[in-house]
Amino acid sequence: MNTSDSNPHLSKNEFQRYGYALVDWLAEYFENLEDRDVLPSVKPGDIRAKLPVNAPEEPESMEAIIGDLDEIVMPGMAHWQHPGWYAFFPSGVSPVSVLGEFVSAGLATQGMMWSTAPSATEIENTVLDWLVDLLGLPTSWRLDTGPGGGVLQMSASDSTHLSLAVARHYANLKGHDTDSLVAYGSDQAHSSIEKGARIAGYKHIRSVPVDESFAMDPTELANLIAADITLGLVPTWVCSAVGTTSTTAMDPIRKVASVAKEHGMWHHADAAYAGSAMICPEFRNLQDGVELVDSYTFNPHKWLLTNFDCSVFWVADRSRLIEALSILPPYLKNETSENPSAIDYRDWHVPLGRRFRALKLWFVLRSYGAENLRSFIRSHVDWAVDLESKIVNDGRFEIVAPRTLALVCFRHLGGNNQTRELADAVNASGSAYVTPSVIDEMDFIRVSIGSTWTQKHHVDSLWKLIDGNAATL
Amino acid sequence: MNTSDSNPHLSKNEFQRYGYALVDWLAEYFENLEDRDVLPSVKPGDIRAKLPVNAPEEPESMEAIIGDLDEIVMPGMAHWQHPGWYAFFPSGVSPVSVLGEFVSAGLATQGMMWSTAPSATEIENTVLDWLVDLLGLPTSWRLDTGPGGGVLQMSASDSTHLSLAVARHYANLKGHDTDSLVAYGSDQAHSSIEKGARIAGYKHIRSVPVDESFAMDPTELANLIAADITLGLVPTWVCSAVGTTSTTAMDPIRKVASVAKEHGMWHHADAAYAGSAMICPEFRNLQDGVELVDSYTFNPHKWLLTNFDCSVFWVADRSRLIEALSILPPYLKNETSENPSAIDYRDWHVPLGRRFRALKLWFVLRSYGAENLRSFIRSHVDWAVDLESKIVNDGRFEIVAPRTLALVCFRHLGGNNQTRELADAVNASGSAYVTPSVIDEMDFIRVSIGSTWTQKHHVDSLWKLIDGNAATL
Repeated sequence: MNTSDSNPHLSKNEFQRYGYALVDWLAEYFENLEDRDVLPSVKPGDIRAKLPVNAPEEPESMEAIIGDLDEIVMPGMAHWQHPGWYAFFPSGVSPVSVLGEFVSAGLATQGMMWSTAPSATEIENTVLDWLVDLLGLPTSWRLDTGPGGGVLQMSASDSTHLSLAVARHYANLKGHDTDSLVAYGSDQAHSSIEKGARIAGYKHIRSVPVDESFAMDPTELANLIAADITLGLVPTWVCSAVGTTSTTAMDPIRKVASVAKEHGMWHHADAAYAGSAMICPEFRNLQDGVELVDSYTFNPHKWLLTNFDCSVFWVADRSRLIEALSILPPYLKNETSENPSAIDYRDWHVPLGRRFRALKLWFVLRSYGAENLRSFIRSHVDWAVDLESKIVNDGRFEIVAPRTLALVCFRHLGGNNQTRELADAVNASGSAYVTPSVIDEMDFIRVSIGSTWTQKHHVDSLWKLIDGNAATL
Repeated sequence: MNTSDSNPHLSKNEFQRYGYALVDWLAEYFENLEDRDVLPSVKPGDIRAKLPVNAPEEPESMEAIIGDLDEIVMPGMAHWQHPGWYAFFPSGVSPVSVLGEFVSAGLATQGMMWSTAPSATEIENTVLDWLVDLLGLPTSWRLDTGPGGGVLQMSASDSTHLSLAVARHYANLKGHDTDSLVAYGSDQAHSSIEKGARIAGYKHIRSVPVDESFAMDPTELANLIAADITLGLVPTWVCSAVGTTSTTAMDPIRKVASVAKEHGMWHHADAAYAGSAMICPEFRNLQDGVELVDSYTFNPHKWLLTNFDCSVFWVADRSRLIEALSILPPYLKNETSENPSAIDYRDWHVPLGRRFRALKLWFVLRSYGAENLRSFIRSHVDWAVDLESKIVNDGRFEIVAPRTLALVCFRHLGGNNQTRELADAVNASGSAYVTPSVIDEMDFIRVSIGSTWTQKHHVDSLWKLIDGNAATL
């Protein structure tokens, strides 16, 4: 490998030596995560102060570089993989996924077209088709049997943005000007909807009121649409949240679909977190009507043991996506460009280049097998059910939103101050991290169970932490 | 790590065993790349035919999974890292970069906000500031000293798209409707400009004619703008290509900037490939006037020894970017949200989640040191100069576009058929891969020198291949 003084790459022996060292370093990291505080104690600027102002002119040793993982990186880490991480939604990882990412990084192949990366393209085709069946989604979304198809993107935000841009494209083709288009999501929908709509050029973004379960009220949706039509605006796009970020509320897809169809709107389903749970048939009623949507996104990088980034975007009709995005300059033309069985993924999203992300997903699905993936999800839901029942049976707390999967939302009956103090106390423990949140001016605590290394006894410890701290409030 | 039967992750020992095995596998891959054919011989569907129709229910062994790298993946690989890869632009990689990606995958931290990833955020802040100085860009683009700043994105396409969306946002704020906005790039600019503009909702995208060097003609730009203004349209965004994809032509940034300033347009510079060369001061005249642009993108993942994805996007005034993109829902609020020295990168691009991509860049910049990075770039340019002189001095060929860096564009004087036949013959050898391309109906061959493992003797072999095949045409 190191065959020239002018190209001072690591030699083969060095790559192996430091590769082994970093495998060991990560193995130790995973094993001893629990001994670390979940959150760092640094202030803005602390990490930067340890770094030089300018890049080094001379090479530094790998010993120094690897040593700085402990010296510089660790002190500023919020450990998303800590077993006591209950904040936000989980950031997926597994040992086998990390190994897949490693190989993919080394191959450094560019999957913009089938011809530039046949294996990467066809393995992505295949594992996304596998996931269609695993999640009980419409068979017509499989590339090999239907008009639909899936593509890996970086994040659900990217998918949501893309669906908005595609919907705008077709509305423009119908003669509607961009400034008249309207996008709709529930007032509990993820910030990526407002952000994606703004970036896609929508001037009108409506927050649809929700029912008492924080799910979109389809009657309110219909009312807002009627009002917008009266104003001369054009209802173009609507999102059903399959699990809102705040409380994992489930929008009624079937009813939303009926409204969307009436007005010829693009209907996107955002199952970023909850999608992973659909590998268990017993949860699929939560997305009843999913066969009616135009696009769907979920993140294996949240709750399916695959490290970020790995977000799936499915469309019910891939020709609509490709037609909206395809551009074919001479330097990208080749003999398979016209072959419909050779997918050119560059026409499926904003970026041209793309790495071999399907490799880690292929590793994960094969190494665990579907049965173990289901057990993984079910255990988290079971522990959430258990925690929920403890909260329900304790006179000091109340559940603030229905638990649909493995997120428990509760508050201290003493009010907002006590609730915030309780969250602060839990987070100050160093052994757990929950998200303090607010809905309708009511403070509450989100406990999201789903980290790879979390076990039942960790959730039991969390309860003790909640219980004990509530006693001293 | 494997502490429960219900979570059958690889154990610590298994992770180490298979981790070492994959380090060895990649080390062998790098070392023996030259023995492989650059391009695979598979047809669409061949790889997929080796894979089952459905995901496995039961776990598969790591031996089987790793074995399939050779059995299934390798037969369908176009080896972007082969020393004989002269196609497109290089896909960057280095052993140390791959190790950085591996650690980043294991940490699986989410850098959406400073508070969720202080180390990832501040190391990204720092290395992008380092690169400002390394590339001789305006000091005011450094986060620590100026109003500008950089952010890592997936690809230059993402950066170009984002700059278009931000420019549209400000045009809208001035009262211009989206359907009246116009984006300009040279007729040699990358497809990402047309694609990004379409996705960002531009209805008017102008291809500006180029001069004999294939660089944008600023007078033609001014003429097109004048015509558009007459039509009631609003010139909004213009891209200067710092190295076009076809021929690495350099648009005259300073003159384009003067036109852009006159009309209050956003001026974006796309240096996706050529940016890496700017670490060598002698090439900076190619981007004279760069201090005048509003945004700039370059890809360390092309020519700076860093594996995809790793694309830098700088803005001269970060407040313009953040103001256009920032959305702050309650679950993302925290005590540092208002702290200007704690950068929340979620407000700098489309996605919310983001991985610790700066880690591999930090590894690369430190392990090589700036001096070795400059030597790396200079060696490729030297070899390109040498190849160019052989072509110029051979009566059978001609150079079709000025060589600015390490891309040589030439044709067979016999015409298009001979040129295509020559490219096909070179590519059929298995030891080299060049891109056949077309400009103004003239076929030519692109030889892009820049792969990590390419050495002088490989380029000499390529010349022998060209020379020998031309003799038998």
